[in-house]
Amino acid sequence: MTAMPSPITSLQNPTVKRLVRLRGSRRVREGEGRVVIEGAREVSRALAAGWPPEEVYLCSALWSPEAAQLAPQLPLSAITELSPEAFAKVSGREHPDGVLLLSRPPHSDWPRLPEQALLVVLHGLEKPGNVGAILRTVDGVGADGVLILGRGADPYSPNVIRASQGSVFNVPLRQTEEAEALAWLEQEGFTLVACTPDAPRTFWEADLTGRVALLLGTEHEGLPAHWRRDESAVSIPMRGQADSLNVGVAAAVVLYEALRQRH
Amino acid sequence: MTAMPSPITSLQNPTVKRLVRLRGSRRVREGEGRVVIEGAREVSRALAAGWPPEEVYLCSALWSPEAAQLAPQLPLSAITELSPEAFAKVSGREHPDGVLLLSRPPHSDWPRLPEQALLVVLHGLEKPGNVGAILRTVDGVGADGVLILGRGADPYSPNVIRASQGSVFNVPLRQTEEAEALAWLEQEGFTLVACTPDAPRTFWEADLTGRVALLLGTEHEGLPAHWRRDESAVSIPMRGQADSLNVGVAAAVVLYEALRQRH
Repeated sequence: MTAMPSPITSLQNPTVKRLVRLRGSRRVREGEGRVVIEGAREVSRALAAGWPPEEVYLCSALWSPEAAQLAPQLPLSAITELSPEAFAKVSGREHPDGVLLLSRPPHSDWPRLPEQALLVVLHGLEKPGNVGAILRTVDGVGADGVLILGRGADPYSPNVIRASQGSVFNVPLRQTEEAEALAWLEQEGFTLVACTPDAPRTFWEADLTGRVALLLGTEHEGLPAHWRRDESAVSIPMRGQADSLNVGVAAAVVLYEALRQRH
Repeated sequence: MTAMPSPITSLQNPTVKRLVRLRGSRRVREGEGRVVIEGAREVSRALAAGWPPEEVYLCSALWSPEAAQLAPQLPLSAITELSPEAFAKVSGREHPDGVLLLSRPPHSDWPRLPEQALLVVLHGLEKPGNVGAILRTVDGVGADGVLILGRGADPYSPNVIRASQGSVFNVPLRQTEEAEALAWLEQEGFTLVACTPDAPRTFWEADLTGRVALLLGTEHEGLPAHWRRDESAVSIPMRGQADSLNVGVAAAVVLYEALRQRH
């Protein structure tokens, strides 16, 4: 039996520096083909969804009860131990729980879509908090997947993973070009339901059964004209001074109305 | 005509230090009886809602178009000019727009409640982002007000104001003790609708017309037993792996269902 190597303590250690770079830069993550997954809940969900534990970084002094329960399930050969100071340096959290995984998306085909498939299409969304919140809600409502058009936010950035609470690993997800996505959605018989303030119908007046793709743009710019279909677009009534809802909130309101109608 | 005094440039200036303290500490804000309102949109909404412009801090070099339009409406005698460096120091934002107001809540009575009043009651919510998001949605859906029980998040903290996008100034708001709130709600004939995962009915099966007080607790702790009413509590169906929705998302889903039913 080999003794465990001593934990990394130096903030100048190359591994610490590499983890900091991976956390901070999409370019670095894409260059290495790695996703940084921090936190016991998020790591558990990734592993359960078949993401491979390629490199595991632990700091037992920081473990939450959930982290302590998870640790024995992680492959010993992939584990590097960090001191609390070193872990705090590579962590993106105020109160890290001492678990961090490097992984990569497992290969997965787009699942077979049911007759009443419900998808969400994100156009130009940049804020990780919004993208993560939408992924969490998509998971909650049991929708069938999310298309992210163009670049937008990196769905596997540490902030999106965190805001989604790990739901990003449970939701079928594709990043695609606009033209390709539009052609595919039309070919698959989806009704394009743009959520936009000037739509003639409210979301509860619309038929949200059948194959529905809910389109969401940024709060400032909305959706480009070629994604709008006035006959199927929906608005969310605004009855006060606020001129719009947060996009994650708007998504949830329409998705749960779709679930209600399908029930 | 008096010349404008030169802008404050030193980060050691007592005014700069005071503004930093006010932004950072609820205790300091409550001690001075002041609310810090930053950003052209938020300041506009506060002024429109009757909040007095007691002290105004501007940095014209940082103005957005919206800020430049707002500035001439601010009382000259209350204005202090800051350099970009000094403004950045007192700002809580990554990209400040050069407008900051110190104000205090105007006296307001609770508005006369309509027969179908819709209120939101927050129990123990701490995260400013969630409280702000709920205030924005309450404004959007046109609900009649919010009760904040106990201490919880400071509804006038800079982060709540920002997350609400200034809706906090448009929503009737009371911070009250639990026992007092419960007695008042029952006396006023409100149905207490706790939103909780183990409720026997889904939110769309419940009658959300009439006087409804939607009760929201923290995601971790939920609501204490004396606030639960099983016959009127509602759940939001969870169809995926996620075990809960974000509390701000949950609030929006139920509030818009109430609006749909009342339509």
